Amino acid sequence: MGNMNIRALAKELGLSVGTVSKALRDSHEISTETKKKVQDLARKLNYIPNPYASSLRKRKSKTIAVVLPEVANSFFSLAIDGIEAVAQERGYHVLIYLTHESLLKEEAILQDFQSGRVDGILLSISSQTKSNSHIRELYTKEIPLVFFDRVCEEEETTKVTTDDFNSAYKATEHLIEKGCRRIAFLTISSELSISVKRMEGFKKALTDHGRPVNPDDIILCPDDADKNYAIIKEALQRKDRFDGVIASIEKLSITTYLVCRELKLSIPEDVKILGYSNLSSAAILNPSLTTITQPAFEMGKAAALALFQSLKRDNPRPANEFIVIPSTLNVRDSTG
Amino acid sequence: MGNMNIRALAKELGLSVGTVSKALRDSHEISTETKKKVQDLARKLNYIPNPYASSLRKRKSKTIAVVLPEVANSFFSLAIDGIEAVAQERGYHVLIYLTHESLLKEEAILQDFQSGRVDGILLSISSQTKSNSHIRELYTKEIPLVFFDRVCEEEETTKVTTDDFNSAYKATEHLIEKGCRRIAFLTISSELSISVKRMEGFKKALTDHGRPVNPDDIILCPDDADKNYAIIKEALQRKDRFDGVIASIEKLSITTYLVCRELKLSIPEDVKILGYSNLSSAAILNPSLTTITQPAFEMGKAAALALFQSLKRDNPRPANEFIVIPSTLNVRDSTG
Repeated sequence: MGNMNIRALAKELGLSVGTVSKALRDSHEISTETKKKVQDLARKLNYIPNPYASSLRKRKSKTIAVVLPEVANSFFSLAIDGIEAVAQERGYHVLIYLTHESLLKEEAILQDFQSGRVDGILLSISSQTKSNSHIRELYTKEIPLVFFDRVCEEEETTKVTTDDFNSAYKATEHLIEKGCRRIAFLTISSELSISVKRMEGFKKALTDHGRPVNPDDIILCPDDADKNYAIIKEALQRKDRFDGVIASIEKLSITTYLVCRELKLSIPEDVKILGYSNLSSAAILNPSLTTITQPAFEMGKAAALALFQSLKRDNPRPANEFIVIPSTLNVRDSTG
Repeated sequence: MGNMNIRALAKELGLSVGTVSKALRDSHEISTETKKKVQDLARKLNYIPNPYASSLRKRKSKTIAVVLPEVANSFFSLAIDGIEAVAQERGYHVLIYLTHESLLKEEAILQDFQSGRVDGILLSISSQTKSNSHIRELYTKEIPLVFFDRVCEEEETTKVTTDDFNSAYKATEHLIEKGCRRIAFLTISSELSISVKRMEGFKKALTDHGRPVNPDDIILCPDDADKNYAIIKEALQRKDRFDGVIASIEKLSITTYLVCRELKLSIPEDVKILGYSNLSSAAILNPSLTTITQPAFEMGKAAALALFQSLKRDNPRPANEFIVIPSTLNVRDSTG
């Protein structure tokens, strides 16, 4: 039954299209007996409602979008797992869109959502995202959006993050206690709210321990692997060399290890390294990596729950709140 | 202009809906002057065509789906990058769907596509997938599908893989040359075509080197991390212990390292390990991991190119062919 449509179904049953349509949507206006008859035949004839047509009526695609910079990152992989766990229970599809840290791509993706392709959006912004105008346009279309990890703080919706300030404070204090004299803080952005908070945590810990805060110690690594490698290599060759590194983004830990290998710097003797990371291989790196481990799965779950709350109430603005789930420090060999 | 529609646009311009629609689609039937007038006003009024409505007309969602088991895997992450590189050039959106190795989920996702949500599909099947009926139904709906990595060999469409037999042969030969007496082959499936081919390569290399092929040496690790850990631990505690391990799936390498640590087996002295892996951290594991490195990015690219060929010709069946892109052996310290 290639192209069974609702009209053919109605004809077959001797009912009106409206009755069949209501029966398929399990409407209370239709008797149980008729509903059973319609649904049985629809199943038998393998009738599949056209989602485009039915979306025009119901404005429900039963689909949510997850928009994020990359998936080659164990934090985002685990967050997706948390999101899917929640969506699956509710019979929703999850679509994953990647921005590859490009504001232009992020704008194009969000623009596309304005036309009703998805019912709701979970967003972790690109490192280039500064203005919010492309995000605000979604509210006028009544499409709810929840931020996770990389958030726009001033937006009046739900923002799920970890304790970025505190975790960076703890990380910095750990390196100071382990005897580091001069600590480099590697970041991909000086404007993303999570980067700013981690930087602030780093600076505050230095100040609280009577250390100077040197702007040169905050090292910006934009989004290109070769470029990042060169930047970190330059940093580790400076006079009065760094003897501690905080990699505030997962992939920068790996790069720092590779640079140390090339420069024949031993970890942790010459340089101690601490990374924000959820890598399952952290414990078997050479040496094993001390990490700030983020509650990635839980963050994805919390963000999805907030979004579905808003879908349930048909409310384009999820609760205006921060949900903060703490990270943990896992001390391993890379910090001695 | 919340709900600007094409009718309102036409009224504003004093033109027919048909003319406006053609002008927006840049039809040659409409004069350049009129097209400019229509497009300028559409832009000014922030008119966005409804993709559901326009899909009903054109049956083009400008979207392709990538259906795969997981993203927490560097092979799949890189393959997605290759797919997106091709799709982006053509102005297509890429939607990522995860099956988490469940046939039921795979069936539900593919069923959903039957209604025209996407223009084409790139599929890497779940480890549970044995029958192809859910895949064949797509052909009757004229939705093209291309397989990559985990393929259904008998399907008459394009199948992009690496040289699974040869690479496993090479891997096994490498361990034999390094002096391994007894090699374990870890796999997640005994039925997936790539698993079967890798197993065949393993067996053939043993036979060619005058070694017995012992069925107990092929160790099935289904898809649960704790279970896999227990299975590998049991294997490495057997009498006449394995002194070589081929992990034919990326995550099984990490698990094998962790088991060796618990059992205090040194790598490579007690056990040599070789993994199918694209991990960027392979070189900095303790010890660095010898890998069969798959051409993940190139495989994603080739699969996407085959799909777009078929979309261009409006052909629901892409060329019935195998595209095989070879892997490389990267020898590192884990095989001594």
